[in-house]
Amino acid sequence: MLDFTLENISAEDVERLRALYEPLAQSVRELIDATVRTQADAATVAAAKSEIDSATARLRQKQLDGSFGVRYLASGERLAWGNAVIGIRNPIAPPLEIHHDANGKSFCDFHLGAAYEGPPGHVHGGVAALILDHLLGEAASDGINPRLTGTISFRYVRATRLGHLHAEAMTTRIDGVKTFAAGHLADQEGVTVEAEGVFILPRWARDGGD
Amino acid sequence: MLDFTLENISAEDVERLRALYEPLAQSVRELIDATVRTQADAATVAAAKSEIDSATARLRQKQLDGSFGVRYLASGERLAWGNAVIGIRNPIAPPLEIHHDANGKSFCDFHLGAAYEGPPGHVHGGVAALILDHLLGEAASDGINPRLTGTISFRYVRATRLGHLHAEAMTTRIDGVKTFAAGHLADQEGVTVEAEGVFILPRWARDGGD
Repeated sequence: MLDFTLENISAEDVERLRALYEPLAQSVRELIDATVRTQADAATVAAAKSEIDSATARLRQKQLDGSFGVRYLASGERLAWGNAVIGIRNPIAPPLEIHHDANGKSFCDFHLGAAYEGPPGHVHGGVAALILDHLLGEAASDGINPRLTGTISFRYVRATRLGHLHAEAMTTRIDGVKTFAAGHLADQEGVTVEAEGVFILPRWARDGGD
Repeated sequence: MLDFTLENISAEDVERLRALYEPLAQSVRELIDATVRTQADAATVAAAKSEIDSATARLRQKQLDGSFGVRYLASGERLAWGNAVIGIRNPIAPPLEIHHDANGKSFCDFHLGAAYEGPPGHVHGGVAALILDHLLGEAASDGINPRLTGTISFRYVRATRLGHLHAEAMTTRIDGVKTFAAGHLADQEGVTVEAEGVFILPRWARDGGD
């Protein structure tokens, strides 16, 4: 089964850790963008690479054996700081900050730059799938237990321009352990990708489960 | 329309540029992994962040205005170095190195670490979709013109463990501008995600079209 660790750390500790590691990840996001777009010469690249390798060695002096995982606090709050879509400590995550409105809609506004490219100037179709898979899963969740994707399908209306984007999703139906959700991704000119999926409550989170 | 630039640079120039920028992106991939996993203290993180910001400033001294795009060489070779899945210059790309066998199967073997996490210790479901979207699109392509995703669906058999993975895909049917492809992702214990999709030849790549 999946290992969701319960951590007994205080709200103050969470804020201290966030203040320490969130700006680090944001710096690495800037570096990723610069790495894709740079036209620097060999001497400049060598100097930059040397600094990067030095930073990596510093950070590796003390590190987790595996991945970050998901930590549940005693308060019930869920820290998915390593998550590939919403992880504030994960430089490959945009990261998405998901909001929920009173009608049950989950939505987010975010920016995707050069690192998320597929067709020239446009978002990789698979990145659109990555974002929507996460958002529909979040819409299908009850805020306590996650729902894992069972099946999901995407219809690409047209290419999504890199830049400022909006995505939204909501639950459309619940049938036992299955929750159905639908949503879309949009750029400045409107909807670009539509998605619908079925999300499953993990066995360990069901009544009496392990 | 999408802008696919034709570059008149020689094979030697391509190799020189690859030797310059590919190791840089690989260093940034190591840094991404270290950033997710580090448990370093505040002083160490501050020193690392300072080096990262310095490297970014160096690389930004001369950079492309927008994203990397896709360059076609006079030889017909296609350089998608900024691509989010296969881009050797893109630190968020694993990057996938896709092979093709004599029976028309496209496949790749690769490693996904902490930066690609969703459920603890496991690949984000959306990352599986990202990888398979790209691979099926590649299987549906003729090696000259890309095929863009029309629709694609995924069935999650079980969670995919982070680590060494294998993915494969092939064309199943062609009907005019539509190419149908299917494939799967597997971890060390077998198939974890199945995919099928319809891929479309872009309008500008059709006979006489722009």
